[in-house]
Amino acid sequence: MSAAVIVREVGPRDGLQLVNDFLPTNSKLEWITQQAGAGFSEIEVTSFVPPKLMPQFADAENVIFASNKLPNMAASALALNLKGVMRALDAGADVVNFVLSASEEHSQSNARTSTDEAIGVFKNTKEWQRKNAPDSSITVAIATSFGCSLQGDVPEYQVAKIAAQLAEFEPAEITLADTVGYANPLQVKRIFKAVAAEVGNIPLAAHFHDTRGLGLANVVAALDVGVRKFDAALAGLGGCPFAPGASGNIATEDTVYMLETLGMRTGINLEALMKLREDFALWLPNEPLQGRLGSAGFARTFTYAA
Amino acid sequence: MSAAVIVREVGPRDGLQLVNDFLPTNSKLEWITQQAGAGFSEIEVTSFVPPKLMPQFADAENVIFASNKLPNMAASALALNLKGVMRALDAGADVVNFVLSASEEHSQSNARTSTDEAIGVFKNTKEWQRKNAPDSSITVAIATSFGCSLQGDVPEYQVAKIAAQLAEFEPAEITLADTVGYANPLQVKRIFKAVAAEVGNIPLAAHFHDTRGLGLANVVAALDVGVRKFDAALAGLGGCPFAPGASGNIATEDTVYMLETLGMRTGINLEALMKLREDFALWLPNEPLQGRLGSAGFARTFTYAA
Repeated sequence: MSAAVIVREVGPRDGLQLVNDFLPTNSKLEWITQQAGAGFSEIEVTSFVPPKLMPQFADAENVIFASNKLPNMAASALALNLKGVMRALDAGADVVNFVLSASEEHSQSNARTSTDEAIGVFKNTKEWQRKNAPDSSITVAIATSFGCSLQGDVPEYQVAKIAAQLAEFEPAEITLADTVGYANPLQVKRIFKAVAAEVGNIPLAAHFHDTRGLGLANVVAALDVGVRKFDAALAGLGGCPFAPGASGNIATEDTVYMLETLGMRTGINLEALMKLREDFALWLPNEPLQGRLGSAGFARTFTYAA
Repeated sequence: MSAAVIVREVGPRDGLQLVNDFLPTNSKLEWITQQAGAGFSEIEVTSFVPPKLMPQFADAENVIFASNKLPNMAASALALNLKGVMRALDAGADVVNFVLSASEEHSQSNARTSTDEAIGVFKNTKEWQRKNAPDSSITVAIATSFGCSLQGDVPEYQVAKIAAQLAEFEPAEITLADTVGYANPLQVKRIFKAVAAEVGNIPLAAHFHDTRGLGLANVVAALDVGVRKFDAALAGLGGCPFAPGASGNIATEDTVYMLETLGMRTGINLEALMKLREDFALWLPNEPLQGRLGSAGFARTFTYAA
């Protein structure tokens, strides 16, 4: 039975962005391998950004090379510009997730470019990929789609307009990201509906942070308007170093648990995930483990979705 | 402008149930007073249970007596039997919240009686109150309405049936409580709808714990089916000593924040609440403060509901 909803693990990428200690490549690969074994069909495994700026991802080539050998799992890598995309595809990435920002200020801070320029870069990226790596797949994520800690409000029509422009270049998927945890359920419904109306049949995904506790409520809201793919990070790790106040992604284990209780099959073995969470505490002893399921355990009444 | 939704603080009652250190009466009253000043129109301030079993509430009479003098705030007290109700009303409680359990096993563990017997006790309680304290108000809460860590499943039709029986005795309000954090949003909608169909125009309230991270998603679900009153505890304190695995209530500050972002006026001054949260850490230094807003702060885009 295929999954009714996809939970994409982004911990090895988003989760590690704020972690100062370099997690050794072997630990990253152990993490990714175990999570693929637990049933994850998509994992964002690394980031092709300048190693000088983010030394955590200095091993991006090695991580993507090894991750690509795992069966039944698509390994994706983040990139912010053409150079990053080329590095990722050269290293053999199945999927490159190009990220730009709806907020001008976050765009300048995160990628040193304007939003319009970034849309142009995405166009060039897609053209380059079609010619040089046609078997790969390029997705795109719109950061700060629900507001920005630098700029404040991000107009909803602007997010829809950016999505419409990106859709012309035929990304495999568009993710709306709540980079700083500003989203609320009503807003989630409004913006996803507005974007869906602009992008034809390009699938949409949601990327929520639980910064203010609304992460899982936002997942339910997105489900309600038809979203069937969600980013999450094991133990709720995560945050953007160029977005002040950003903190943890929604915890993968809590997200999977909730989706299963809502009758949405994820294909994920939660017991294996909880075991992995324990190893995780050993690999990153200085990082507080977020998420509630880790301390509470499953309800006695829990059953996987049928 | 009156509030569109009521958040009832239950920290001084539910929140303190698992706290071993006796919080001095003066600190409790300072907490209650400040929270009333921050705009809370209802606070559950104490519990009339045998002090031998729960020494935390040995000062119940003093707490209710002082709380009753606060303007624009209805102080309620929990009771599990007629003796508790009589003690509470003697002490001058505005509102007594009678709690019984939908789960037989939790009923035996928490109140040493069967659910049916407890319904009978509630009947007697209402009769006694009508004769002896007609100016007071009696509400009722059905614990373990969404499942039980002792018994497991609690059939939904049974919760509806219990609510229908209780409605005959005209409680001022019926609360459905997820004592052990087993509820999910779909179940919340189903059970509240089923109960609403049974109880005529008796208002319903929701009491959620965030044990597995679904607390605020459950609030949104309950809002969707018309619930307009929610219990919450400052800093997410709380849990039931007679329900294994029970942990914190939804955090009041996160709940109020979410409701306001959803356009639901609470009448609560969130800044004052956040300040109180800091005092709280001083009063209860051994209790971890839960909730996400406390560390994240407000979004730059936050505005109160209009």
